[in-house]
Amino acid sequence: VNIDSIRAAAERNAGHVRKTPILSSPFLDEIAGRRVFVKAECLQHTGSFKYRGARSAVSALVEDGYDGGILAYSSGNHAQGVARAACEFGLPAVIIMPSDAPDVKIANTRSLGAEVVLYDRASESREVLGEAMQAERGLRLIRPYDEPEVIAGQGTCGLEIAAEFGESQADVLVCCGGGGLSSGIALALEADAPDLRVRPVEPEGFDDVTRSLADGQVVQNAQLTGSICDAILTPRPGELTLPILSRLAGPGLAVSDNDALRAMVLAFRHLKIVVEPGGAVALAAALFHKGTDPVIAVATGGNVDQSLIHRALAI
Amino acid sequence: VNIDSIRAAAERNAGHVRKTPILSSPFLDEIAGRRVFVKAECLQHTGSFKYRGARSAVSALVEDGYDGGILAYSSGNHAQGVARAACEFGLPAVIIMPSDAPDVKIANTRSLGAEVVLYDRASESREVLGEAMQAERGLRLIRPYDEPEVIAGQGTCGLEIAAEFGESQADVLVCCGGGGLSSGIALALEADAPDLRVRPVEPEGFDDVTRSLADGQVVQNAQLTGSICDAILTPRPGELTLPILSRLAGPGLAVSDNDALRAMVLAFRHLKIVVEPGGAVALAAALFHKGTDPVIAVATGGNVDQSLIHRALAI
Repeated sequence: VNIDSIRAAAERNAGHVRKTPILSSPFLDEIAGRRVFVKAECLQHTGSFKYRGARSAVSALVEDGYDGGILAYSSGNHAQGVARAACEFGLPAVIIMPSDAPDVKIANTRSLGAEVVLYDRASESREVLGEAMQAERGLRLIRPYDEPEVIAGQGTCGLEIAAEFGESQADVLVCCGGGGLSSGIALALEADAPDLRVRPVEPEGFDDVTRSLADGQVVQNAQLTGSICDAILTPRPGELTLPILSRLAGPGLAVSDNDALRAMVLAFRHLKIVVEPGGAVALAAALFHKGTDPVIAVATGGNVDQSLIHRALAI
Repeated sequence: VNIDSIRAAAERNAGHVRKTPILSSPFLDEIAGRRVFVKAECLQHTGSFKYRGARSAVSALVEDGYDGGILAYSSGNHAQGVARAACEFGLPAVIIMPSDAPDVKIANTRSLGAEVVLYDRASESREVLGEAMQAERGLRLIRPYDEPEVIAGQGTCGLEIAAEFGESQADVLVCCGGGGLSSGIALALEADAPDLRVRPVEPEGFDDVTRSLADGQVVQNAQLTGSICDAILTPRPGELTLPILSRLAGPGLAVSDNDALRAMVLAFRHLKIVVEPGGAVALAAALFHKGTDPVIAVATGGNVDQSLIHRALAI
């Protein structure tokens, strides 16, 4: 992956992927004690940035003449992105999702025309399941982050940030699971806005990228479940993404589930956007971790079940 | 007010007023049975389109050399718009607000640096109060809709709609109180997108504009309270706005409070935006009133108390 593949993805996605707005509020600035800008990827089609990478990958396959089925495994946002992208090109899609994924994500993926196969997150490996199905049904797998064209697609979000903040010096806080978005944005900023630096943000207890960057080697998470930030619970950093992040990003940050909920409510109240917990950790770090320089936080997704909204509004 | 004053307002507001995104979702299209586009003015600074008109009016005064205090009466969204605009130009602001306005609107107006004076909506006239204060304290009143530079500012929203949909034939549904936004948009569309037609949308029981357009004369609402759509409960159409609407807009539409709540939840779920009841009536009409042609609905504001969010999510 490099800046050329990101620009090519931007060209293929033009007119389909939404250029999301960058929002701000004096009330958030006051809480944070610094200027806070929020790139609202929850307003992206399918409710998260994942559509960028999914459409980049599917369109690249189609450009190469592929016309078969698509396979993906995902906790829900990549699922919806791939389902919509496959549907746009008239390709069938099979999506492997954990059985504890939010209802809204499972329902939306089905409504977007995909076949959903559920698995148990604690006892089964989605990678193993995915590879078996790929062979069995002749489908083409699009991995959620260890996939060059997916990283290139996520990088288009970085091009948009660079276009607005190219002259600034600031941290760009990015909610981080496997690191696809963080590494894509980092590559885009390296080319177009070298004074902006990506800092991955993860949930406490699932800070594999943060610790891997600090240790200089791959560190795995001890658990696979136990946070409300379902969108970004991955066992370990991506093989393609970690080297990019080691070169261009960090140090990482970790935030508590409670701070993610607090950030959700503040985004709701002051920005008028709906953000899911895993999509709110970057904003939580912007608001509640110390700092004085302006900061850009990517609100990566908004696909949240109503029960969690009630819980957030109650704190 | 004419297209030249709207373009002049757009020039004065450039770089300050946010160009809000136009959102859509296949799920909403399916519910409505037609394409639905949502102009998300709830993402405007201060959480509603009102900042457009307020900044237009304050900047016009400053351009003319005015440097005194500003006075406004408002149920809350105009209040916040004027407070922010006055603050930007370093002018003091006094805002007269009904005592039953949502807490969030009163608190935000104060936080934006304005002095808030509360009145009783049922027994007192904000116009009379406003004119007394104006004389007494030497302030300049900016009316919420019967004010040429406010209408011109609201019209800038129409310029943005025309820039995206100039080639289309469609209804533009606009949440309507006194008619400032509806008439401003209508004037902008007349010049830049003559095949788009504004249709004002009001709460049932508060459809003074709809009935005035149908009857060809000014019709007043029977009551002043009794709907959750606080932002758009006005006693009668504006004196400046109704003639514009009679010439360019209608017929009007009326929706129930319950449909406004349903639209709020659907905007929340599928567009990831927070809309207040009075800002959701246009989307409610787009979703639940029959029609087959594509439709553009303006989601005018998002300043809603948490109690009402719980109520909306519970339906």
